[in-house]
Amino acid sequence: MVRTVNLKRREARRGHILQAAVACFIRRGFHQTSMQEICAEAGMSAGNLYRYFAGKEAIIEAIAEEERRENAVLFEKLFGARDLLGGLIELLEASLRRAADPDYERISLEVAAEASRNPRVAAMFARNEAEAKEAFVRILRVAAERGQVDPDLDFASVASLLIALADSAIGRMTLDPDFEPAALAPTMRALVTRFLRPPNGSDAL
Amino acid sequence: MVRTVNLKRREARRGHILQAAVACFIRRGFHQTSMQEICAEAGMSAGNLYRYFAGKEAIIEAIAEEERRENAVLFEKLFGARDLLGGLIELLEASLRRAADPDYERISLEVAAEASRNPRVAAMFARNEAEAKEAFVRILRVAAERGQVDPDLDFASVASLLIALADSAIGRMTLDPDFEPAALAPTMRALVTRFLRPPNGSDAL
Repeated sequence: MVRTVNLKRREARRGHILQAAVACFIRRGFHQTSMQEICAEAGMSAGNLYRYFAGKEAIIEAIAEEERRENAVLFEKLFGARDLLGGLIELLEASLRRAADPDYERISLEVAAEASRNPRVAAMFARNEAEAKEAFVRILRVAAERGQVDPDLDFASVASLLIALADSAIGRMTLDPDFEPAALAPTMRALVTRFLRPPNGSDAL
Repeated sequence: MVRTVNLKRREARRGHILQAAVACFIRRGFHQTSMQEICAEAGMSAGNLYRYFAGKEAIIEAIAEEERRENAVLFEKLFGARDLLGGLIELLEASLRRAADPDYERISLEVAAEASRNPRVAAMFARNEAEAKEAFVRILRVAAERGQVDPDLDFASVASLLIALADSAIGRMTLDPDFEPAALAPTMRALVTRFLRPPNGSDAL
């Protein structure tokens, strides 16, 4: 019992530090943020904070872990859908909305910039990416068996392009003020439906 | 005559500094690079270098200008094509190949991270983006008149999604080692063709 309470408290503390770290990264960038600044933002001493995270890389690893959990929830929901093509479109729309959030965008760009420089950080996110791709391919395969998706498509390539499209909103809003996920939704829906449906499928959703 | 030689020399010098700056940004990131480091990389004194660029922001502006020129060349080529849909696909493939270049990827991520923090830098690239989008919409309109593209699509949204897809390779290779533009080309071609062609168009290209 005491153990559970301690674990919960530890989990809450980690969450609090993570939030503080993300706020710092958004404000100043990952590379420019020091552990001291994260301590100040979290209102904790360095000695205390280091008991939870050994450094900035451990913090970014926790961010990757969080993304992994979020993806798992999205995919679980999708696997339960009867209309897999419709579910896939909803997932893409949800990704676009998430990617268009300015804070999510900033932190994603910081993470991407760091990953492109630091192979250990890249590996953390590459694992998430590989899992997401695998889930996409499984869904496409089942959808093809149900006649909802063209079985002649190369599913690995389709998965790569759909994931790329889902993440493409990151950085978009800064460059294109019209990049509004809600406004793009009907065209996005047309793109995915026309791309994936079997050759003789109807145009209606 | 002397004036032309001087202008050319000045242009060459600017190009040399730009190359040195990009090498620094790729190695250490935009934010972490100092003007002193760029001077060292370019083998120039600070006094000399500042005659060409007032600071890092002026350098990033020159990078935006370069992107603008590159885009203009791509679009000019496209406007001359008879098969606009085919030309559009080629342009997207060329963008994917460019975006998959590790150096281009690194510098793009640095620029995006800086733009998301610095509205003046964002404005430089937003202008390029707006011009590219306008060009895409014009091409789609002409292609629709020629019966090569479905006239009922919302061309502004189509342009936004195609540009997002073209840029989506940036950051991809770090996360997904299978993200190979050449391997994706046939599926990319299917995506764009099926998405854009008129409802009664044939599947063949």
